[in-house]
Amino acid sequence: MTDISPLAPAAFPALPPIAGVRAAVARAGYKNWERCDLTYVALDEGTTVAGVTTRSKCPSPEVEWCRAALPLGRARALIVNAGNSNAFTGNRGRAAVEAITARVAGAIGCQPSDVLVASTGVIGVPLPIDKAEAGIAAVLAAPEAGWEEAATTIMTTDTFAKAATASAMIGGQRVDLVGIIKGSGMIAPDMATMLGFIFTDAAIAAPLLQAMLDQANAKSFSCITVDGDTSTSDTVLAFATGKASHAPLETVDDPGADAFQAALTDICLQLAQLVVRDGEGASKLIGITVEGAASDASAHRIAMSIANSPLVKTAIAGEDANWGRVVMAVGKAGEPAERDRLSIRFGATQVARHGLAVEGYDEAPVAAHLKGREIDIGVDLGIGDGRATVWTCDLTHGYISINADYRS
Amino acid sequence: MTDISPLAPAAFPALPPIAGVRAAVARAGYKNWERCDLTYVALDEGTTVAGVTTRSKCPSPEVEWCRAALPLGRARALIVNAGNSNAFTGNRGRAAVEAITARVAGAIGCQPSDVLVASTGVIGVPLPIDKAEAGIAAVLAAPEAGWEEAATTIMTTDTFAKAATASAMIGGQRVDLVGIIKGSGMIAPDMATMLGFIFTDAAIAAPLLQAMLDQANAKSFSCITVDGDTSTSDTVLAFATGKASHAPLETVDDPGADAFQAALTDICLQLAQLVVRDGEGASKLIGITVEGAASDASAHRIAMSIANSPLVKTAIAGEDANWGRVVMAVGKAGEPAERDRLSIRFGATQVARHGLAVEGYDEAPVAAHLKGREIDIGVDLGIGDGRATVWTCDLTHGYISINADYRS
Repeated sequence: MTDISPLAPAAFPALPPIAGVRAAVARAGYKNWERCDLTYVALDEGTTVAGVTTRSKCPSPEVEWCRAALPLGRARALIVNAGNSNAFTGNRGRAAVEAITARVAGAIGCQPSDVLVASTGVIGVPLPIDKAEAGIAAVLAAPEAGWEEAATTIMTTDTFAKAATASAMIGGQRVDLVGIIKGSGMIAPDMATMLGFIFTDAAIAAPLLQAMLDQANAKSFSCITVDGDTSTSDTVLAFATGKASHAPLETVDDPGADAFQAALTDICLQLAQLVVRDGEGASKLIGITVEGAASDASAHRIAMSIANSPLVKTAIAGEDANWGRVVMAVGKAGEPAERDRLSIRFGATQVARHGLAVEGYDEAPVAAHLKGREIDIGVDLGIGDGRATVWTCDLTHGYISINADYRS
Repeated sequence: MTDISPLAPAAFPALPPIAGVRAAVARAGYKNWERCDLTYVALDEGTTVAGVTTRSKCPSPEVEWCRAALPLGRARALIVNAGNSNAFTGNRGRAAVEAITARVAGAIGCQPSDVLVASTGVIGVPLPIDKAEAGIAAVLAAPEAGWEEAATTIMTTDTFAKAATASAMIGGQRVDLVGIIKGSGMIAPDMATMLGFIFTDAAIAAPLLQAMLDQANAKSFSCITVDGDTSTSDTVLAFATGKASHAPLETVDDPGADAFQAALTDICLQLAQLVVRDGEGASKLIGITVEGAASDASAHRIAMSIANSPLVKTAIAGEDANWGRVVMAVGKAGEPAERDRLSIRFGATQVARHGLAVEGYDEAPVAAHLKGREIDIGVDLGIGDGRATVWTCDLTHGYISINADYRS
């Protein structure tokens, strides 16, 4: 599976450095592969952190570690392991996380809780502590790595390195945001997706950063799905080094907070869509907008019901304007809906209105739209003001090939 | 897609006649195909009926008709159309159902509400009234058809005709049950599946028959899933002609009621499993048993989360004992679970216990089990007494081929 997704951007983006952030990569050898698989990010003192993690009832010890550390709001280092998720490994998995954080804390002179850790890969195999410790020794001595190297090193089944940038003006000072993310399958984050890391030189108090990340997450990572399967390891962390010279943001009412919120939501949405663009086997990016629902939350659940329907996803793979399957998915969502008020469009063409097919609609623009790489489906329930948009990809033979051949 | 499912039984079963039931088939020509597609079942006076229908918020007019007729508890005829579901067709769809029931009622001298109707096939195309009326005229003049002809005529994308039988002793008298069913994709009945019809010569008051069918349904049709997609047309109807000479059953305490309930549940489970055996693209039948859950309902939701996980289903297709994906599906169900009490087995082999892999478990029997046609996955949550078993099939290239090529 080294073919790059047809939905990948043409090139890795140009990204600015973020003051107070320095990355390095090394080869821990978690799997039998010839590539770097351990990423280390050093963060200057004063860096604040916020995060969202999986709602899975079976989270990895890394997720539990981050959940415990995040309320403290401080970060000095991030370690990301690729190839082994360390999930469902009992005490040995917990011991590996404790060993990693103690080793890094000892080397750079901070508390273990200032070290955040994330791992993805195979479930059920304890992360080998010896390999992790050797990898950390190597990475602490390694030269600085660029964003593309870091984004590549956190990958597992991903077919391309994913990153995005945004900026905002706070008190007349420009601040930059850079994010990297990985993820391709087992993507249905109910709150956060896979592993995503966002870095900014803005100065933002940790509680505010957390509130802003929660808000951005609700409109980005929580609105994507590849296969409806929620990972045990999903984690998104945002780090603010405070190196910019604006007055630190403490509350949402501080000047510049709105601008930063907009930039943070923007970068989260870019990153989330990159994950869908690398959805396992994906050949089309599908945006699904539901309007006229009883509430925004109801619209979101209906949109996700459509986005997770294998029959809708295979219809799009087959470039078939099978709106009957959209009706089915609306019906099964269990949310308020009235069949005879329901309308559906593919691209700009209304194919069903008020509960029945639009007589003699022009099939040519629909067929042309479905042949493209980016598909837009609109559903109007006609019963309220609720609205939501979610993104997914189609379901193809590629997904089956990847997942029926993958060995645990 | 004329290849018969590898999970099909070796032969269509031998089925007894049911006194008071007479079937016939005809060619209405709903699609451009050379086969019978209209099934008619005449029921003698005094037949009681019960039914369960889809919980979809966008049901077909046939489902709405049955919902309105079922509380009356009487039936004289059943019409089943194949190739056109008549769903999402507005007033024209309703008019078709009214025309069908009026025509049959006029011919045999009963109320339109004594005529039950069910249709499956393409969504969004009104059932052509002229074809339906010509088909009814033909079927009323047709010779009696056998069960296999009837079971074949109600098929759409099914690859084999499905039927089952059971019997019970009531007051020293043997009563027989015969059921036919169709369904292959869009199978995630939350209450009923696809089209299923059960006939018995037992004498059972309609309210009791309904209560018994509800109970049987909860342990059969509500416990299967092919793709997590719930149809707009799901309907199961049970008809009791009362031709047997036992004292009619009125309440669950009447002698013989227990025996009939057991037989009804048995036949429903047989029929439900036949649908999974014909799941689109299926190569393996997967039974998933969850024990030790907080409640039976919680166990059911966790089992369905596993059964609907594309990652679990593709792992089984690949004959991969990837129990990490089972952990993932337990975790995403959102039900009470404690990672460190969770145990998992494939077949008879425990592969994970109390939150981590069983060290050095014997992989040979696991591999042998996964090479078979019938896969058994067991999950013990270790937190309570809740228990449930559900059935699904694997997710293969066949499912993609069938659904990405199907044209609306």
